[in-house]
Amino acid sequence: MIALKPVTLPSGRTQLIRRLVPKACPLPDVHSDELRLQIFTHRSFYARPTHIFEDMPDDPSPDNEMLEHLGDSVLSLVVTGLMRDIFPNLRVGPSTKIRALVVGNPTLASISVQYRLPERLRMHPAQAITLRASTNIQADLFESYVGGLYLDRGLEVVKSWLNPLFGPYLREAYRTHLQQQCKMVEWVYADSAGEGTMTTPIWVVRAMVEGECLGRGRGSTKKAAKNEAAKEGLSKMGINVSSQESLV
Amino acid sequence: MIALKPVTLPSGRTQLIRRLVPKACPLPDVHSDELRLQIFTHRSFYARPTHIFEDMPDDPSPDNEMLEHLGDSVLSLVVTGLMRDIFPNLRVGPSTKIRALVVGNPTLASISVQYRLPERLRMHPAQAITLRASTNIQADLFESYVGGLYLDRGLEVVKSWLNPLFGPYLREAYRTHLQQQCKMVEWVYADSAGEGTMTTPIWVVRAMVEGECLGRGRGSTKKAAKNEAAKEGLSKMGINVSSQESLV
Repeated sequence: MIALKPVTLPSGRTQLIRRLVPKACPLPDVHSDELRLQIFTHRSFYARPTHIFEDMPDDPSPDNEMLEHLGDSVLSLVVTGLMRDIFPNLRVGPSTKIRALVVGNPTLASISVQYRLPERLRMHPAQAITLRASTNIQADLFESYVGGLYLDRGLEVVKSWLNPLFGPYLREAYRTHLQQQCKMVEWVYADSAGEGTMTTPIWVVRAMVEGECLGRGRGSTKKAAKNEAAKEGLSKMGINVSSQESLV
Repeated sequence: MIALKPVTLPSGRTQLIRRLVPKACPLPDVHSDELRLQIFTHRSFYARPTHIFEDMPDDPSPDNEMLEHLGDSVLSLVVTGLMRDIFPNLRVGPSTKIRALVVGNPTLASISVQYRLPERLRMHPAQAITLRASTNIQADLFESYVGGLYLDRGLEVVKSWLNPLFGPYLREAYRTHLQQQCKMVEWVYADSAGEGTMTTPIWVVRAMVEGECLGRGRGSTKKAAKNEAAKEGLSKMGINVSSQESLV
């Protein structure tokens, strides 16, 4: 199993890091020379003014902006489809948050660097050092590669590459998102109303989250009672817990 | 040619309306009964609480939220790809604005109603009238159909349906966007420094937009001079103008 860990960046954004991506999921070739050149051409290469509406037909500047834009859509589709396969019962709300973690620029930039894509970027020489080191440019380049590959070889080739690549990221993002949902639980023991005896007590407990009682449990040990309350609480939050697992 | 016109809604959003969509681009069938049922099932049908993280595996509520989410990605990809085919030189900035016009809820809702999709929606009976009349629900239903069709029959079938459907919308949105970019032009005539004569004058004009000179022109008529200035100005704004057209 490949190690994967979430890192909180100084910006507060989360980066998921998986080592050995290129070894586990080799970069598929883009066959068209023209597309490959375009994938690795930054806007600055042509030194055109900004705020252009449309290039002249006889004077195009084929940089990677449109491929990145297309790749962004391809990536969204592939990752959304993959999430549906892996977590068929996940609701849309958490699913968009999990997807945002996985296709966010910090994560894509880390993948881009592992494939050494930034080293191949053609750009205005004066900006080379700044651009190659930029997280956004690194992430854009990955999206541009996805867009170019889609045009070159179609959606199925992109999926065969990205599904095994993003599966582990999605599973980690799922865990991270679940943990981020965690809030402090306060355990309140109540009177068991004389049900137990000194030697076989009955513990009755409520799981309180932010003043609200999310679950109640009772059992012959504190742990058993808390487990029951926790399961009821999680179930109320829509999180599935198998009856075998111990939670607290 | 099918009539298509942009309408500004009370909300200030733009709706593109094209008549006879179902006749020109028939709705492809979804073969799977299960998917078809899910496409037309609104969340309210199962009357589940909101803020659920994940359905229990033994108790799923297969409504159309996830299909709509997937369909949204499919639609983005198809429309972005189509724009690249139709306007190969369009830059990303205007292209995202044009796409937003076309895949915005008002436009999708109008298409959804023309296909009579809302009539087939299964939902909580108490909400039926409100939901069927809601622009957002109508648009969601179209996206859900796109998502279901993608899972049922793949991307190529979706593209064969949506490319001819959205082509005219994109062309209209392109025109609308160009018009929205229009600003007042002030024509300033300058001294032609004695070049012309009383009978054959030389007109020299500057096209001023918001105090900035965008183009200069000269000609034997005011119209010819303004045309030259306008072409220079549009060219500076990145808009391509063929040399045959008269602009002013």
